[in-house]
Amino acid sequence: MSSNPDIRSLLSKCLPGHSLPQPFYVDSDVYEADLKTVWSGEWIFAGTRPELKKTGSYLTIQAGPTSVIVVRGADDTIRAFYNTCRHRGSRICAEARGQTTKLVCPYHQWTYDLDGRLLWTRGMDPEFKADDHGLRPVHVREVSGLIFICLAQQPPDTDLLERTASRYLGPHDLPNLKVAQQTSIVENADWKLVMENNRECYHCTSNHPSLCVTLPDDPFLWGGGTSAGSAIGRAHIDRCEAAGLPSAYTIAPSEQWRFVRIPFVGSATSFTLDGKASVAKRVGTVPFDDAGSCLFFHYPNTWMHFLSDQVMTFRIAPLGLGTTELTTTWLVHKDAEEGVDYDLGRLTEVWTNTNDEDRRIVEENQVGIRSAGYVPGPYSHDHEGGVIQFIDWYRRTLDSHLDDHMLHAAE
Amino acid sequence: MSSNPDIRSLLSKCLPGHSLPQPFYVDSDVYEADLKTVWSGEWIFAGTRPELKKTGSYLTIQAGPTSVIVVRGADDTIRAFYNTCRHRGSRICAEARGQTTKLVCPYHQWTYDLDGRLLWTRGMDPEFKADDHGLRPVHVREVSGLIFICLAQQPPDTDLLERTASRYLGPHDLPNLKVAQQTSIVENADWKLVMENNRECYHCTSNHPSLCVTLPDDPFLWGGGTSAGSAIGRAHIDRCEAAGLPSAYTIAPSEQWRFVRIPFVGSATSFTLDGKASVAKRVGTVPFDDAGSCLFFHYPNTWMHFLSDQVMTFRIAPLGLGTTELTTTWLVHKDAEEGVDYDLGRLTEVWTNTNDEDRRIVEENQVGIRSAGYVPGPYSHDHEGGVIQFIDWYRRTLDSHLDDHMLHAAE
Amino acid sequence: MSSNPDIRSLLSKCLPGHSLPQPFYVDSDVYEADLKTVWSGEWIFAGTRPELKKTGSYLTIQAGPTSVIVVRGADDTIRAFYNTCRHRGSRICAEARGQTTKLVCPYHQWTYDLDGRLLWTRGMDPEFKADDHGLRPVHVREVSGLIFICLAQQPPDTDLLERTASRYLGPHDLPNLKVAQQTSIVENADWKLVMENNRECYHCTSNHPSLCVTLPDDPFLWGGGTSAGSAIGRAHIDRCEAAGLPSAYTIAPSEQWRFVRIPFVGSATSFTLDGKASVAKRVGTVPFDDAGSCLFFHYPNTWMHFLSDQVMTFRIAPLGLGTTELTTTWLVHKDAEEGVDYDLGRLTEVWTNTNDEDRRIVEENQVGIRSAGYVPGPYSHDHEGGVIQFIDWYRRTLDSHLDDHMLHAAE
Repeated sequence: MSSNPDIRSLLSKCLPGHSLPQPFYVDSDVYEADLKTVWSGEWIFAGTRPELKKTGSYLTIQAGPTSVIVVRGADDTIRAFYNTCRHRGSRICAEARGQTTKLVCPYHQWTYDLDGRLLWTRGMDPEFKADDHGLRPVHVREVSGLIFICLAQQPPDTDLLERTASRYLGPHDLPNLKVAQQTSIVENADWKLVMENNRECYHCTSNHPSLCVTLPDDPFLWGGGTSAGSAIGRAHIDRCEAAGLPSAYTIAPSEQWRFVRIPFVGSATSFTLDGKASVAKRVGTVPFDDAGSCLFFHYPNTWMHFLSDQVMTFRIAPLGLGTTELTTTWLVHKDAEEGVDYDLGRLTEVWTNTNDEDRRIVEENQVGIRSAGYVPGPYSHDHEGGVIQFIDWYRRTLDSHLDDHMLHAAE
Repeated sequence: MSSNPDIRSLLSKCLPGHSLPQPFYVDSDVYEADLKTVWSGEWIFAGTRPELKKTGSYLTIQAGPTSVIVVRGADDTIRAFYNTCRHRGSRICAEARGQTTKLVCPYHQWTYDLDGRLLWTRGMDPEFKADDHGLRPVHVREVSGLIFICLAQQPPDTDLLERTASRYLGPHDLPNLKVAQQTSIVENADWKLVMENNRECYHCTSNHPSLCVTLPDDPFLWGGGTSAGSAIGRAHIDRCEAAGLPSAYTIAPSEQWRFVRIPFVGSATSFTLDGKASVAKRVGTVPFDDAGSCLFFHYPNTWMHFLSDQVMTFRIAPLGLGTTELTTTWLVHKDAEEGVDYDLGRLTEVWTNTNDEDRRIVEENQVGIRSAGYVPGPYSHDHEGGVIQFIDWYRRTLDSHLDDHMLHAAE
Repeated sequence: MSSNPDIRSLLSKCLPGHSLPQPFYVDSDVYEADLKTVWSGEWIFAGTRPELKKTGSYLTIQAGPTSVIVVRGADDTIRAFYNTCRHRGSRICAEARGQTTKLVCPYHQWTYDLDGRLLWTRGMDPEFKADDHGLRPVHVREVSGLIFICLAQQPPDTDLLERTASRYLGPHDLPNLKVAQQTSIVENADWKLVMENNRECYHCTSNHPSLCVTLPDDPFLWGGGTSAGSAIGRAHIDRCEAAGLPSAYTIAPSEQWRFVRIPFVGSATSFTLDGKASVAKRVGTVPFDDAGSCLFFHYPNTWMHFLSDQVMTFRIAPLGLGTTELTTTWLVHKDAEEGVDYDLGRLTEVWTNTNDEDRRIVEENQVGIRSAGYVPGPYSHDHEGGVIQFIDWYRRTLDSHLDDHMLHAAE
């Protein structure tokens, strides 16, 4: 990004309640600014503790050209490091996930401990200090089994998030789940369009036939406040909370994240084509099957569903201008046995369909926005309140980080 | 395009009668300038009336990242719109052609009438005005069955074109033809190289064996004035005009378009490998089989052949820097029956070959121009007069629009 | 490259003995600067005389977007020309190598003699002067059967190189070898990473199992001076020189090129999986089989192995930002017969494996360097002295040409 003043100038042209001006979705300077501000300054969801089952389990996560290793140490602490050797910069782990005893660079076998310390090199100069060449650490925080990383030098505070997540997600007992399936797809669209798409169900009826069997598209169920606009939603929340399941709509003061529990359509209990449970074992301490879904989002890169029989996490990562990866993970009770307690096809088919339908939609959105004929259009406050909320958060957050970035660039 | 002064500076370095300096063919700033001036300020050929057979028939045309829908209304009027929803900007029609009753955005089903009015949305805010959110119109003009669009706010005048086309093309009765075949290929070359290639037959002998069976490569048949340099051409024009078929060379004062009728080699009547007719039914009121071809070009994006038994249109569209799409359409009498009156393979083989040969040629041209060793070279006035004429038109037209563009950019 | 001052500023940030700052490996301005300075100002290895067996034999070589034809004339002189027609700029030779009688442009058949003179055109204007439109020459120099080209107007002096090469390479008699195999692979990495990789064997043990059968990885064999750090190396040099085979380490004052002869592991004589000779006929006047390899590098684009039974040349060419082509040529005695004197698979398998292993390594290096987490790391003086030497040469050479380039840009 050569010129922050240009980004400010672009920000000043945004219309409230409207989609963003074209450059926000197509311009390489904005894309670079997004990476250097929002993606480098905020907490990013990386995965879950069940993905790091034991000592040496690791996963990698991409933010633009930057890859980060998240790894579980011998002390069971989860740490994160830039996935780049301190010698000549080779990527260390090429895979999306794996299991290792040490982190070994494939180029010259510089060998790092799981805590990032450089343990071994060969033939370096006498004055070389291994202690100065450990892997560069990245902040990591575990929140009720969810793992977040932050590339900033001073990461934002997470106290309120931790306390809130503990209440809402604790009953789903994420640390005692296991990964049943994980998939990644690439969508040819700016990451913000992928997130906008998730933040409304205005498009669901016409595009998601299998999802709509169970997921209601009434925006007042999710919309904000106490979901007071929906009697069904209110009743569901009251019933769940009476059973000890925190469920009422709550949002961060910054509006970066939100929790709310919504009911499914009719008597449905899970994301299946018949609405029935997809896994025989209930997770955690959820008191009944028809608990609906506890929805959680955390900008810029995740949304999740916490059900009575499964948890689904969605993680997006910009891979390049107009290219976004979506990684979906299905988690079930750690003792649930495939083929006995659940059928993998049945567990995953609704959201496999839905993800592909969304991919097609956002790609067409991206193509249309590239046109000289594009002008920002109005969102529906009723149906797209969530999109407005995301866009507003994005604009504030981008703006707030521009100064940091200018300070860094001036160094 | 960041800097029009740079484009002017480049223009000042062009040598008369020579190919353009390297940046005109390889530089992204020039490409963007082409899109914003020539392609946004001039009429662009989009298709023919037979491609829009009935109410709701539509086609889409690309100019760089901008897609335009051309659609036939219930009143049989042909209209054009930016192919971008006024809601969140999704592309509306993803296909190159189709048939519909309404224009429905795939994202949230905003529904537009064929005349562009927004007919239906769901759940928009009370203050939302549908009337303010119709599809953004693009100028459209029908010229003897040829459909042109223009992205400019004030499109250029077409009176002379309409009057002239009526005389030259009227006898071929385009509205009563039908599409026999339409193909698209992508050429990895700047759009100007594709057009330059079409504007000379200096390369034909060595590259187009099947085309040269019927198409003469004598440049004096096409060259200009009264084709006085060619006795055969003069005789053909005289014979055709005596039979009521306007044929003499005529060119716009701006030199943007031209008509001239040329004879085929020997007794050939159509583009076939034996020179015989490819369709049993003659088109329109053409008085005899051996009428040769009435050649029409219209910059920046089309050339056409009007024969006694078929009409061929060629349309180019820049898809990106160094990438151009060529769409070829073969039209025959609407009552001609495939397999009875014509064989599709025989109808299309000569130009299918020729297009592919030209693709290879212009791609090698593009590759060679990218070299540090490229210097603009001299065109032959005899054989490449048409190229000189195109390049001169391009330079004048680019220059004339730079000011418009600067005014717009300053808004 | 818009701004040489930026390149100078980047150069000033390089740390001695460390890998280069990120922009040198990933920035398009640096890539363009590399092409316009190092690659346009220095001699580039193009091929060997055996690749141009007779009159009209040619090869093409790429440096970024610029292709050069190297061709053997009727007078057996080898000449080089920009592979771009002086007419409209088409590439003339699309193939990597071939045999022709004249250089004929595929577009309009402008025909050039093998010495570059324009021999024939058709229908050009009366004032057109063929003498002014010969192919643009590129400097070419043959050095003991190695062919170098230079795009600069005033190429650097080659006297010392010629004298030295004559002594070291003469015994291998390159002009009397023949090409047994030539392969090209593309590596997704900056050309400097490909060269860095070649300049050390620190990575060999873990990555090149088949190469390590015969090639020792002791850096003191190659390191510099008299290879005094290695008794084995010293003994090998003494033995070879006593037999009349120049072998001692020698490097250009500019450090652009170097010769040294090293022994193989144990009694190995060639790059094979059992260490035995791969070709039954010894090349030139090499006095014994176990002469090891005479190593030659010449920046920016080649390294070679001269053995007793074969010669291998490696040539790299930048194809684009982060994309490099590696061409490997195996040469054997001209009278060696495939299937009798050598088996092609056995001859080529070790370096086919090794090249692919190196491709994987440098691609991971490139990926890791793109990260925001990359910081230049320290090279081992013992094991990576050759890399330091290359990087230092690169920085000096880039710097020395920036002024030339600014002068040219100001023209």
